[in-house]
Amino acid sequence: MEFLLNIVVTFPPDGDPAEKERRIKAEGVRARELAAAGTIKRVWRVPGQWANWSIWEAPDATALHEAVTSLPMWPYLDVEVIPLAAHPNDPGAGK
Amino acid sequence: MEFLLNIVVTFPPDGDPAEKERRIKAEGVRARELAAAGTIKRVWRVPGQWANWSIWEAPDATALHEAVTSLPMWPYLDVEVIPLAAHPNDPGAGK
Amino acid sequence: MEFLLNIVVTFPPDGDPAEKERRIKAEGVRARELAAAGTIKRVWRVPGQWANWSIWEAPDATALHEAVTSLPMWPYLDVEVIPLAAHPNDPGAGK
Amino acid sequence: MEFLLNIVVTFPPDGDPAEKERRIKAEGVRARELAAAGTIKRVWRVPGQWANWSIWEAPDATALHEAVTSLPMWPYLDVEVIPLAAHPNDPGAGK
Amino acid sequence: MEFLLNIVVTFPPDGDPAEKERRIKAEGVRARELAAAGTIKRVWRVPGQWANWSIWEAPDATALHEAVTSLPMWPYLDVEVIPLAAHPNDPGAGK
Amino acid sequence: MEFLLNIVVTFPPDGDPAEKERRIKAEGVRARELAAAGTIKRVWRVPGQWANWSIWEAPDATALHEAVTSLPMWPYLDVEVIPLAAHPNDPGAGK
Amino acid sequence: MEFLLNIVVTFPPDGDPAEKERRIKAEGVRARELAAAGTIKRVWRVPGQWANWSIWEAPDATALHEAVTSLPMWPYLDVEVIPLAAHPNDPGAGK
Amino acid sequence: MEFLLNIVVTFPPDGDPAEKERRIKAEGVRARELAAAGTIKRVWRVPGQWANWSIWEAPDATALHEAVTSLPMWPYLDVEVIPLAAHPNDPGAGK
Amino acid sequence: MEFLLNIVVTFPPDGDPAEKERRIKAEGVRARELAAAGTIKRVWRVPGQWANWSIWEAPDATALHEAVTSLPMWPYLDVEVIPLAAHPNDPGAGK
Amino acid sequence: MEFLLNIVVTFPPDGDPAEKERRIKAEGVRARELAAAGTIKRVWRVPGQWANWSIWEAPDATALHEAVTSLPMWPYLDVEVIPLAAHPNDPGAGK
Repeated sequence: MEFLLNIVVTFPPDGDPAEKERRIKAEGVRARELAAAGTIKRVWRVPGQWANWSIWEAPDATALHEAVTSLPMWPYLDVEVIPLAAHPNDPGAGK
Repeated sequence: MEFLLNIVVTFPPDGDPAEKERRIKAEGVRARELAAAGTIKRVWRVPGQWANWSIWEAPDATALHEAVTSLPMWPYLDVEVIPLAAHPNDPGAGK
Repeated sequence: MEFLLNIVVTFPPDGDPAEKERRIKAEGVRARELAAAGTIKRVWRVPGQWANWSIWEAPDATALHEAVTSLPMWPYLDVEVIPLAAHPNDPGAGK
Repeated sequence: MEFLLNIVVTFPPDGDPAEKERRIKAEGVRARELAAAGTIKRVWRVPGQWANWSIWEAPDATALHEAVTSLPMWPYLDVEVIPLAAHPNDPGAGK
Repeated sequence: MEFLLNIVVTFPPDGDPAEKERRIKAEGVRARELAAAGTIKRVWRVPGQWANWSIWEAPDATALHEAVTSLPMWPYLDVEVIPLAAHPNDPGAGK
Repeated sequence: MEFLLNIVVTFPPDGDPAEKERRIKAEGVRARELAAAGTIKRVWRVPGQWANWSIWEAPDATALHEAVTSLPMWPYLDVEVIPLAAHPNDPGAGK
Repeated sequence: MEFLLNIVVTFPPDGDPAEKERRIKAEGVRARELAAAGTIKRVWRVPGQWANWSIWEAPDATALHEAVTSLPMWPYLDVEVIPLAAHPNDPGAGK
Repeated sequence: MEFLLNIVVTFPPDGDPAEKERRIKAEGVRARELAAAGTIKRVWRVPGQWANWSIWEAPDATALHEAVTSLPMWPYLDVEVIPLAAHPNDPGAGK
Repeated sequence: MEFLLNIVVTFPPDGDPAEKERRIKAEGVRARELAAAGTIKRVWRVPGQWANWSIWEAPDATALHEAVTSLPMWPYLDVEVIPLAAHPNDPGAGK
Repeated sequence: MEFLLNIVVTFPPDGDPAEKERRIKAEGVRARELAAAGTIKRVWRVPGQWANWSIWEAPDATALHEAVTSLPMWPYLDVEVIPLAAHPNDPGAGK
């Protein structure tokens, strides 16, 4: 099942630079693992913001929750999860 | 450039069945043309609603507007267009 | 996977009484079928409104969409689907 | 009478880890007591968030308030209470 | 248990005057019955609108729903129900 | 003239306990004075929250403002004031 | 006591022109009476809309409701009433 | 003074085609007059919608209201007017 | 041109009392200057809040911005500016 | 492609004055570079606020994101990006 996620990063602008650096780096590593596993399929930046839209694939919302909360940046993420149903005319289904 | 679209169909439940039929059929034809042209890349249903989320590709917002308004159902569509920026870690970029 | 649904009935107060009667009757029949199949697990009325909250079980959002749109009242339903993830302390899990 | 609750935990990500640990542990204990007493009937996680949806049973809103505010995490909870009325076709009534 | 209700009347301004008259008259009769039964305790107009705020007393949300939907104007009412819990310093408790 | 007030207490969960204690105590004293003077007529808790709904009586909005801002907790209160007009069928008018 | 009102006219663009004409004319007459009585003190147009902001003076919300609902256009008005309290530095107080 | 306007056209999809045609044509004529007079300075389409964003110049909100309401489509326009103040670094000031 | 302003003061309840005192005092001085200049014409308190509604007169939004930002409390003000157009039936025009 | 941006500066009123000074100065320099490059075409202040509306030109949302995030104030900016499509009657197209 696919999900559309809107994620806003809330790490404060005056937060500890070292922790920010560490979390961003670890986030990149974990995100690549989730991409390699087919869990994260697409990611786009919201122009002008520290935020993104993304397409995830997971068996259900429970598995999705585990994947999202495995992100090192998660304590500083506002995450909205939108469930998606298959559309008969989806040109990209199965990709 | 890619765009995320949220489209809600507002054709009234007590509208003319023949016109509804005709527009849905024509919509399917036009949607497949736009998919074949690479303009519509993904489409999902919003579960429980006559509505969808979709990913479009167009040179700019002007070309996108022309593509969206070419849909036969357009007079009965509430369309929200969300611009997307490339993300360096997008596993599906270029697909 | 379980889903929380908020459904508002929009059949107009001055709509055709016979059609209203017919749809409500058919709705009851279909709802009982979905309950018997384990798809609809709980239903509550929103006090004061022609609306309800309900818990549904379906393999994914696609199957849920098919179940919801099989309701005879569906053209007159505003449906919001909220995905639910399992909680380790849920006293009613599996019921 | 049953209630639908939406609870968001607002404990800050940079809050004291020891207090966080202590409150989460105590919260689990109290939540299990409320479940054993039949006050908390179902709990689900909101996928991607430190938040949940739950079904509570209490004689009235006053008793519910006492139960909710007995949670050790309560000072850090945003709680929305939605009253539920019985539906004649509820397949899970009385469970 | 007490409830705070916000009710907006949606009878259209160009609706049938005879039906409007009939419903308003019947509404007054039923409202006085509910007041006499102690179900409706206070009613105020929202200044400038065909709408009101009111305090109701009912055993639970199910009984409240039955009382509200017994109003002859109900098909044309937008009703929001807000559950109230007792406050230890309420000067009017029990009145 | 009567007013409906929705008050949310914003004293932070990690605020100084002594000041919190002091303000709550003083708040109770002042609230009882306002009740004795007939200014506060009803108070209910919002279930699950540190917030309340209340009915106030004051000659006008200026007098109401003075009464509300005399509450020792006022710097930590989010106050919404809703003006109420008399309803001819109010069973509790004059009480 | 003074009130700030935001009024939006909802008379439909395809409504009966004769009724529209009649109501607008009668509205002007009644508005001038209310102005002469000191009830309506200021009126401004919302630029670009068939809507206005206005300052009213009335003993209380009940009297204000009577004045507003005496407007011939009232069935087609969306009226929001905002109560105002005196400010010690108001340069226009008493005018 | 410059204003930012967001205009949504609400002419119904099943409205009279002849009237629609007539109003659109007249709208184009009047819009060009306002552009020639320097009142309308920029216009953009909202992609996917029958709506636009535009920059207007007018001595004040009163003159702007007269210009906007001179549009033949005005009865079917939802218009939001946003006042703009000069910015010292505006590269396009005076153009 | 006249403007309607809604101003909410956001100075924190636990802010420095001396700075608060100093800013409030200076605010009063500046507000009286603006009133004497005819820039601030009316001011009302929002009952129950540290906030106000006011009517300002300024040649345009640029001049208004300069006047508002000259308030010593401005860094702690949330200001909403609503442009007003003259109404032919305004009983207070020119006052 | 043109974009409409709404930018709100969130630098706290009690933030470090030296950093504020430094960022504002650097912001001015970078903004002038972006204007000289034709990326920023118009900028207006939101009257009464530390915020602005602006028109940007960029090949796509990705290039726009790079330009916006190059602003030295960016960590303290809330940025909303609105995509614009060309309008056939735009008097300022190409300027």
